[in-house]
Amino acid sequence: MADRKLILDLDTGIDDALAIAYALGSAAAPNDADSMSDDSGSAAAPSDAADLIAITGTFGNVAVPLGVRNSLAVLHAFGRDDVPVYPGVDHPWAYDAAKFGPWTPSAGSVAVHGENGLGGAELPDSPRAAEPAGSAVDFLIDAMRSYGDRLTIVPTGSLTTIATVLRKAPDVIDSGAHITLMGGALTVPGNVSPGAEANISQDPEAADYVFRCGARTTMIGLDVTHRTALTRSGTAQWRALHTAAGDFLADMTDYYIDYYLAHQPEVKGCGLHDPLAVAAALDPTLVTTLGVNLKVDLDGAFRGRTIGDRARLTDPVTTTRVAVRVNVERFLDRFMTRITALAAKH
Amino acid sequence: MADRKLILDLDTGIDDALAIAYALGSAAAPNDADSMSDDSGSAAAPSDAADLIAITGTFGNVAVPLGVRNSLAVLHAFGRDDVPVYPGVDHPWAYDAAKFGPWTPSAGSVAVHGENGLGGAELPDSPRAAEPAGSAVDFLIDAMRSYGDRLTIVPTGSLTTIATVLRKAPDVIDSGAHITLMGGALTVPGNVSPGAEANISQDPEAADYVFRCGARTTMIGLDVTHRTALTRSGTAQWRALHTAAGDFLADMTDYYIDYYLAHQPEVKGCGLHDPLAVAAALDPTLVTTLGVNLKVDLDGAFRGRTIGDRARLTDPVTTTRVAVRVNVERFLDRFMTRITALAAKH
Repeated sequence: MADRKLILDLDTGIDDALAIAYALGSAAAPNDADSMSDDSGSAAAPSDAADLIAITGTFGNVAVPLGVRNSLAVLHAFGRDDVPVYPGVDHPWAYDAAKFGPWTPSAGSVAVHGENGLGGAELPDSPRAAEPAGSAVDFLIDAMRSYGDRLTIVPTGSLTTIATVLRKAPDVIDSGAHITLMGGALTVPGNVSPGAEANISQDPEAADYVFRCGARTTMIGLDVTHRTALTRSGTAQWRALHTAAGDFLADMTDYYIDYYLAHQPEVKGCGLHDPLAVAAALDPTLVTTLGVNLKVDLDGAFRGRTIGDRARLTDPVTTTRVAVRVNVERFLDRFMTRITALAAKH
Repeated sequence: MADRKLILDLDTGIDDALAIAYALGSAAAPNDADSMSDDSGSAAAPSDAADLIAITGTFGNVAVPLGVRNSLAVLHAFGRDDVPVYPGVDHPWAYDAAKFGPWTPSAGSVAVHGENGLGGAELPDSPRAAEPAGSAVDFLIDAMRSYGDRLTIVPTGSLTTIATVLRKAPDVIDSGAHITLMGGALTVPGNVSPGAEANISQDPEAADYVFRCGARTTMIGLDVTHRTALTRSGTAQWRALHTAAGDFLADMTDYYIDYYLAHQPEVKGCGLHDPLAVAAALDPTLVTTLGVNLKVDLDGAFRGRTIGDRARLTDPVTTTRVAVRVNVERFLDRFMTRITALAAKH
């Protein structure tokens, strides 16, 4: 057991599934070149190890029920039925569910992640059920109060659940718990509009609350995730394992790579958005950050843009660190090492 | 004479006039605390000294003829009738002068800088004339070829003339001459729209050409200039000099401060846009920069926004350094020291 605790807040999703694999591989990654292994060569935890104590479910790539289903299925595939999955808030703050019905992902999200959210790759249902609907909020509040700065939360979808936590229990803002989120774009254009990145665009009001409520956050946005690219030479390594998990990861990720090559060829592979957020949460030295007090534009064509909050430009306190550079080689090496070692065993 | 040569490309304008004063004060600033003065205490040039060899005229705050008139008048006020003033291109690349008539500044620019561009402060005409209309382009080409990396050009208005130079004589792109421009906004909103800063918005096509043609540029944008603020306690020091130049600077700048307090009170004074660009051009250690390959959005609501060019995100060559932090205290101290010393003598 590592002293550091990790909670992933996912809309699972292809790269969310990879993020789960990265997190599980970071708990005990025997072949990791970065690990502080002892001389016996046995399976030592890497120096940035953390225990994945839970997954919470948000929406974005898929709706909460499908994302939770996928999280449970991925955990089962890697033999981790001990990790509970808590469904979170299932629609954006400004969305009137009574008026519009259940929230559903955009056609764009369906195209990126496939109808099943896993690029059509087949993965059996987990034999176990999720925690009660909506239970993520109180679970996160309790966890932040219990673990304080030993806890890192990595949201990789809509920030609705996290914002609801911070609004409902303002004391946890100063709990010391770290929030390292995948989302936003500061120095590059968005990916769903010239201003907006997909996760922020799912619930701009919630994201704005997170950035302006005083919580300390690290933003892993398109500024860095679009610099990381996984190609089919990477997935070929997983396929060569001839394991069920290796085949699943390769099938799922090849779908994602093909989508990118067709729609964003300049990335030269698929962007490793969510895994990079987990990696940077566990080892902040993978990225270089710039302190910026952010807001989210809420109106018109700029809705969903993350940008400096001019009202807090000269504030002596800076609440968000925005990643602007990433050590691509070190990250990709660690990503392949940890996930391949994990998939080899399942 | 310093070995380094400086050309200011101005749309003079209040802060352009302050930029001229800063540049003249940097050529020989006897009271500068930063100067490498000898033991005799005589008037040594500061360590970042440069000779202002010319001013070229662009448009933005005012049209080219008025900006050129003001540049000549400011030079005369400080006894520098030796510095030639070359008018540049007088309308944006995409502007059809035959169709719309002479380019004129926006109502916004007139409000910021006053009808005479100097906040209504009275300054007599210079006794001398400018160089021929449009002569700035060939002058700049010759200067870049002659001086190479000993030359720094500081554009503080529309980038039209500079872009025309780079398009007409592509060889000067690799001349080694430095271009440190005031304009743009990367991590903060624009000031004429949520995306666009005023100088870039004057001619987005020209600015896009400058950023994407391969020229090495340093961008001093709202990211840093809005962190610098001059208040009436600063202008009071100039007024207390009881000199003609001191009175002029104080009258002009108080108009600017009042505009800011009424329209952008969060700056807590007037932003020292153009002087900061000159200061950072002479001493790059005043700012911290981030390398970004920029483009300018040309369409719709985002027109005029400076943002990372996704097509060049992973390019090993980075052509623009964007200032994201400024040593405000050191800059303001130097700004007041140099300009006050200059105004005391005129």
